[in-house]
Amino acid sequence: MSKIWQKTITVDKLVENFTVGRDREFDEQMAAFDVLGSLAHTQMLASVGLLDKADLEVIQLELKKIYADIKTGDFKIEADVEDIHSQVEVLLTRRIGEAGKKIHSGRSRNDQVLVDLKLYFRHELQEVVEAVQSLFNLLISLSEKHKHVLLPGYTHLQIAMPSSFGLWFGAYAESLIDDLELILAAYHITNKNPLGSAAGYGSSFPLNRTLTTQLLGFEALNYNVVYAQMGRGKTERVIAQALSSIAATLAKMAMDQCLYLSQNFSFVSYPENLTTGSSIMPHKKNPDVWEIMRGRCNRLQALPNDVAMMTTNLPSGYHRELQLLKELLFPAFADIKNSLHMAAFMLEHITVKDNILDDAKYAYLFSVEEVNRLVLSGMPFRDAYKYVGLAIEKGEFKPDRNVNHSHEGSIGNLGNEHITNAMQNLVAQFPFEKVNKAIEGLVA
Amino acid sequence: MSKIWQKTITVDKLVENFTVGRDREFDEQMAAFDVLGSLAHTQMLASVGLLDKADLEVIQLELKKIYADIKTGDFKIEADVEDIHSQVEVLLTRRIGEAGKKIHSGRSRNDQVLVDLKLYFRHELQEVVEAVQSLFNLLISLSEKHKHVLLPGYTHLQIAMPSSFGLWFGAYAESLIDDLELILAAYHITNKNPLGSAAGYGSSFPLNRTLTTQLLGFEALNYNVVYAQMGRGKTERVIAQALSSIAATLAKMAMDQCLYLSQNFSFVSYPENLTTGSSIMPHKKNPDVWEIMRGRCNRLQALPNDVAMMTTNLPSGYHRELQLLKELLFPAFADIKNSLHMAAFMLEHITVKDNILDDAKYAYLFSVEEVNRLVLSGMPFRDAYKYVGLAIEKGEFKPDRNVNHSHEGSIGNLGNEHITNAMQNLVAQFPFEKVNKAIEGLVA
Amino acid sequence: MSKIWQKTITVDKLVENFTVGRDREFDEQMAAFDVLGSLAHTQMLASVGLLDKADLEVIQLELKKIYADIKTGDFKIEADVEDIHSQVEVLLTRRIGEAGKKIHSGRSRNDQVLVDLKLYFRHELQEVVEAVQSLFNLLISLSEKHKHVLLPGYTHLQIAMPSSFGLWFGAYAESLIDDLELILAAYHITNKNPLGSAAGYGSSFPLNRTLTTQLLGFEALNYNVVYAQMGRGKTERVIAQALSSIAATLAKMAMDQCLYLSQNFSFVSYPENLTTGSSIMPHKKNPDVWEIMRGRCNRLQALPNDVAMMTTNLPSGYHRELQLLKELLFPAFADIKNSLHMAAFMLEHITVKDNILDDAKYAYLFSVEEVNRLVLSGMPFRDAYKYVGLAIEKGEFKPDRNVNHSHEGSIGNLGNEHITNAMQNLVAQFPFEKVNKAIEGLVA
Amino acid sequence: MSKIWQKTITVDKLVENFTVGRDREFDEQMAAFDVLGSLAHTQMLASVGLLDKADLEVIQLELKKIYADIKTGDFKIEADVEDIHSQVEVLLTRRIGEAGKKIHSGRSRNDQVLVDLKLYFRHELQEVVEAVQSLFNLLISLSEKHKHVLLPGYTHLQIAMPSSFGLWFGAYAESLIDDLELILAAYHITNKNPLGSAAGYGSSFPLNRTLTTQLLGFEALNYNVVYAQMGRGKTERVIAQALSSIAATLAKMAMDQCLYLSQNFSFVSYPENLTTGSSIMPHKKNPDVWEIMRGRCNRLQALPNDVAMMTTNLPSGYHRELQLLKELLFPAFADIKNSLHMAAFMLEHITVKDNILDDAKYAYLFSVEEVNRLVLSGMPFRDAYKYVGLAIEKGEFKPDRNVNHSHEGSIGNLGNEHITNAMQNLVAQFPFEKVNKAIEGLVA
Repeated sequence: MSKIWQKTITVDKLVENFTVGRDREFDEQMAAFDVLGSLAHTQMLASVGLLDKADLEVIQLELKKIYADIKTGDFKIEADVEDIHSQVEVLLTRRIGEAGKKIHSGRSRNDQVLVDLKLYFRHELQEVVEAVQSLFNLLISLSEKHKHVLLPGYTHLQIAMPSSFGLWFGAYAESLIDDLELILAAYHITNKNPLGSAAGYGSSFPLNRTLTTQLLGFEALNYNVVYAQMGRGKTERVIAQALSSIAATLAKMAMDQCLYLSQNFSFVSYPENLTTGSSIMPHKKNPDVWEIMRGRCNRLQALPNDVAMMTTNLPSGYHRELQLLKELLFPAFADIKNSLHMAAFMLEHITVKDNILDDAKYAYLFSVEEVNRLVLSGMPFRDAYKYVGLAIEKGEFKPDRNVNHSHEGSIGNLGNEHITNAMQNLVAQFPFEKVNKAIEGLVA
Repeated sequence: MSKIWQKTITVDKLVENFTVGRDREFDEQMAAFDVLGSLAHTQMLASVGLLDKADLEVIQLELKKIYADIKTGDFKIEADVEDIHSQVEVLLTRRIGEAGKKIHSGRSRNDQVLVDLKLYFRHELQEVVEAVQSLFNLLISLSEKHKHVLLPGYTHLQIAMPSSFGLWFGAYAESLIDDLELILAAYHITNKNPLGSAAGYGSSFPLNRTLTTQLLGFEALNYNVVYAQMGRGKTERVIAQALSSIAATLAKMAMDQCLYLSQNFSFVSYPENLTTGSSIMPHKKNPDVWEIMRGRCNRLQALPNDVAMMTTNLPSGYHRELQLLKELLFPAFADIKNSLHMAAFMLEHITVKDNILDDAKYAYLFSVEEVNRLVLSGMPFRDAYKYVGLAIEKGEFKPDRNVNHSHEGSIGNLGNEHITNAMQNLVAQFPFEKVNKAIEGLVA
Repeated sequence: MSKIWQKTITVDKLVENFTVGRDREFDEQMAAFDVLGSLAHTQMLASVGLLDKADLEVIQLELKKIYADIKTGDFKIEADVEDIHSQVEVLLTRRIGEAGKKIHSGRSRNDQVLVDLKLYFRHELQEVVEAVQSLFNLLISLSEKHKHVLLPGYTHLQIAMPSSFGLWFGAYAESLIDDLELILAAYHITNKNPLGSAAGYGSSFPLNRTLTTQLLGFEALNYNVVYAQMGRGKTERVIAQALSSIAATLAKMAMDQCLYLSQNFSFVSYPENLTTGSSIMPHKKNPDVWEIMRGRCNRLQALPNDVAMMTTNLPSGYHRELQLLKELLFPAFADIKNSLHMAAFMLEHITVKDNILDDAKYAYLFSVEEVNRLVLSGMPFRDAYKYVGLAIEKGEFKPDRNVNHSHEGSIGNLGNEHITNAMQNLVAQFPFEKVNKAIEGLVA
Repeated sequence: MSKIWQKTITVDKLVENFTVGRDREFDEQMAAFDVLGSLAHTQMLASVGLLDKADLEVIQLELKKIYADIKTGDFKIEADVEDIHSQVEVLLTRRIGEAGKKIHSGRSRNDQVLVDLKLYFRHELQEVVEAVQSLFNLLISLSEKHKHVLLPGYTHLQIAMPSSFGLWFGAYAESLIDDLELILAAYHITNKNPLGSAAGYGSSFPLNRTLTTQLLGFEALNYNVVYAQMGRGKTERVIAQALSSIAATLAKMAMDQCLYLSQNFSFVSYPENLTTGSSIMPHKKNPDVWEIMRGRCNRLQALPNDVAMMTTNLPSGYHRELQLLKELLFPAFADIKNSLHMAAFMLEHITVKDNILDDAKYAYLFSVEEVNRLVLSGMPFRDAYKYVGLAIEKGEFKPDRNVNHSHEGSIGNLGNEHITNAMQNLVAQFPFEKVNKAIEGLVA
């Protein structure tokens, strides 16, 4: 394998296999972003006189071709090339000669991979936000559609008070808003430019980091070059935490689904082709999608801890194992996006059961209503509570099944329009337009 | 112990000890916030006609007295009282009779503890932000003070390139900015009003949740009442994640400190009374503060996982173990604030060593500078790299020890004014003033 | 505070508070074990001529008095004394003069706390084993008592096949056996002697480590002194893992209990005084004990990770934060023992419901039985499976509710005698008798 | 894809992709063990009259051919086949007709995958033990070889007392013994037979589970069929914990290596072809192997938590996400084995530096020796400690660099023969011979 730091001695093959591992596979996933980084870096080099205009022109032309090839899937890291940075340089040099080598001036593989990762993560976070929005919209529309269908509300898994499908779907929608608060924080942290930090201690070249910041659509710089390097591992942990929050929402919904699909609840159902059977029990309709989602999302809930464990107590400065974080983060994006899509796919096919509360065992749901009615008619709360409690003990309790909740966020006043506004306001804080425009400018 | 849900049967003592545990101890820590919640709730009850004006007046008067007592430390949960909510009600009823019982109308212990926790967490987060700002300011001033003192920069723990104390202190300052991004997200998530969600399914009382939202200074409601309940556990996890990010910054700094204090580095030192000795080795000056900080902060890094493990796969609705999260979160705030304060205390006394780079083993730090110089004088990068590499191999490398880094964020151009601006802009996004004003209004 | 390593300079109070923290509180819990260590150490010192017989005699006498005081609860670490080791030395010196100081010869606080922790952990592990045995015996007797009471068996939370209370109780009994395998491994790792490793690099005194190993009832030495020190943090992690396994068993049982107590299952019930009520819902009988147990045990499931996070990437040699592991481990023993006791307490009062399977929704449980019957009468499995599946789809399936499982470990042949034997064989591998005898010998 | 539980409705493709995921890839890794399970199961079926002799003969013959094909790498799960169980059945039926279908009688995919996993894990654990032994032997031989080469011993990362390479290598050897205690516990838990538990509730067939236990070389049964199923997830967690212990040992050693390779320590070195260079710093010799090992092993340290998070709060009975644990465990075995092999590979090439302690900064290492010498000559310990401490403060301390440690486990008496015996005794407790013989018997 061709390595730019190789002088005269061949690195032992075992060492290479052990240290490189699956890294080239992940590098291919961020290939496009490596090219974007080089497009910006070379423009900057030319602007400060470190690259002449003629070289810049051929380099930009070829980089854009490579970018186009990557976009059409026509790109691979060759068998004897170490990483994405080398592959791009190899292609360039093969096509335009010596000039190709100049793209490495004024940076190190350390800040090159830093900027690649930031651009890749930023892109993935945008896709996550879009998938969250889709699911959110579906949940709100299901909440509205089924707002009059009542459901038992549980506390301690005990039958407690009346709830509704309007509340249930709507709760998960609102949960996604708070999850996006964390995604927004992760996005802000990600969307800062580390390029120019070189190996983590800066460079004696007169780099213009503000220019690459603008060209790549970043909100700001990671100013301090030592901090820019320190951001590796930290960015991954923060993103993992943000993804874990969405995952927790989905996992909880999946757990509810598995319970509600159990014959002991039977609150919801799905078409048979979205469930699976059993090799020995012919009557089963198993909720495998929700179980797999619960599992994948719980695995994502453990992800931030994995990142923390791998980075804890590393002193400042680069350490090679930071590379291994790709193995954790890259599949995590696929997992969360797939889970969001599958949740929406399933929910599009959900059937909710009517008249659930007609079952005798749900009569007690209405005990608090009865207490409240007595209170409103003048009885002190503690006395009303005792009165109804004793009626229940004696088996004399007869519920009035009318539910008349009218305050903000309750069964009769879901507030979905406020919730939708809150989501829209939050999404508007992501600078996607500016970012996308910058990227289009780079590859135009 | 007096329990409001107790009818005729005494709950077994063992059960009580096991289920209550240390909860009353934590309830005392959030006593003031329970009173604030009741001040707002009773105003709201009166505004919708569920409490008459005369009752409201005496209730408000007594609640404010209790609040004042709590502030002066003159408050305890009595031995036979179950929790903070009961204690306040007991005190009220003892002093003003039947009217005291009315503060519970239209809510449940579930939303009462939800709002207490939100108010408590919000208050603690503000203190954390203030402690972060103090440390940040100190780090920036140390960065400026020592900006000309060079330090070896390491990658792979190998001597790599010149760094400086300016960069080192500044990096940790900038790290705190990204940590505050997460604190801000946690603050937004915390600063929403769950009151009115009752046991998680709302109430048939015509509550005005917008009014309590304003009175308590919240940014918005947790609209959906099912989501309001679902926020328990989630709020704790999000806060734990945000605290863990500060903790990770401090732990990394502590690891650097322990290394740099080792005689094998000797880059920094502290007055003897800030280190500790050994029971058998009379020459030792151990960096115990930094080690304990590293340990406390790494324990905080594991905290979000603890919260996740305790809440994973719980279906929607309240479950009793959510109470145990207090045992995790309450001490965590003390730990992070103490760690921030101690870090500042220690750094106020740090001495940095001059002329570190004069030691012969640091000569190689300047190899990249040499490569860059050759490149700037016209040699292609790859050739310059090989040339210097061979010189080093032959022992012929003579470094020019002048460091001339001028780009944004580098040794010669730290950008601390930009970093300081970024911090100020971020802190300005916390609505502390509005919140504090609301609280003052309630207790005035 | 009096510190043996203090020379002329007073350590700053802030530093002391931060570094000592709650450590003295935990030291009191292991006080008895510190005295045992000193009893053995001084006998050894005398045996190699480092302590004269007269001194040994008065030292042993006073140490045994202190041990007796600790056992009767008549012992405290005084306000100005740093730790348990200093407190014992202070007491001795106060009572017998200069000779008291000699107990520190030939060891360091490092190996003194190592041996204290090992003795304390060993003692706690024995108590855990005893609590596990009690719960095991109860589960086996419940399994036998209710072996004819059927229960629906679920897969995917879907009604699947007939199960029984015999199987259900018995499964958790057998689970505890595998948990004890881990406790046994943890016990073996704990039950090795670190004394004599001094600060982790041994001593030039001619110590007889084999003698202290015998006196303290250890199975073997931690031979290598560097490894003896390395065992700190590792022992804690291994114990935490072993406790987490018991915790996982209890948490799963608690989850089953919470489900089965839900009105949607109603498989089991408890006397009213072992459940708790609601502040607003008079009909509730909440399973708080099982929920708190689930929460405490899930917190214990996260414990090994906490230990790992605090010790990861610490190079070899002692680091001060190892002290903080006491805060994690000491309460964990109380939590697991309480949980085991409460599980037994609750199960002693459980009522299981008869005739659960009479409910129509459980008819499908018997579909596999039907398939098997057809197979036994000659129909190929795949055909029988299809035949029954179609009957179910057409609503024509009529179950034969006789369950005739006879193989090892099935409903009709639980194998509880084999399971009980396996438990007894495992418990017999713990050398409790030898250990207890050694301790009795020391304090006699 | 052909599924045995499929009746008339095609499962949606999206559902299939989401739920199957990478499972078939992992199933191929355990293919051989699936065949072993079927070999034993069909022998048992015939023994109880559920399979006639003629069918048994052809089935056994073909299964052995498939086993041989798997061993030579000549086996793949076909594109439209769901899992390993189906693939084996498909192959059999293709070759021997209807008889092939009979191998599924009396079991479910649940217990089939349970037994496959147990056999696979058991096999992998044996390979782990062998790799541990190799590394152990190398460490002991390095400890003996370099037993006279001294090294500074650190506490708090401060220079503390003399150590030696003999102690350092030997400590990691002894650490592996305690790690194997956990592997042994995991092995015992793994090495029990779940076959016959069907879907987790047993079967009405008169299975002989004792016979399959013997045929497959298991130590015992998982008796209770509900527990047999409950073992899934638990077995994985226990194994993950055991592997994490080895990983912690390797990660700590890797951290030491990275420190000791730093120019600030320079205690050890490696041939240039086992280190890697830098793209911009020509003098670097980076310890990438040790960094990657530290990262991989720290990731393994987080593994038990991942398993716990994915299984916590699942009630008893099978859940589909248990399948996802393969994605965690299968690569973990490869990672730990590779790490053990690479650690041995590197250590075979290590060079340790002589005369390290000649450096002036290590003089203080000998202060405790000096204190001890004064004590042995009659001065009380506290006085000797003060005397030497003051000498150091005044700069008058002159160390006698002779180290004369003679007690068990110290520099002069490493006890490697005891440590080696302990390892051998432990390894002898693994019933590898019996297991291997059983497997040979099955496929002969």
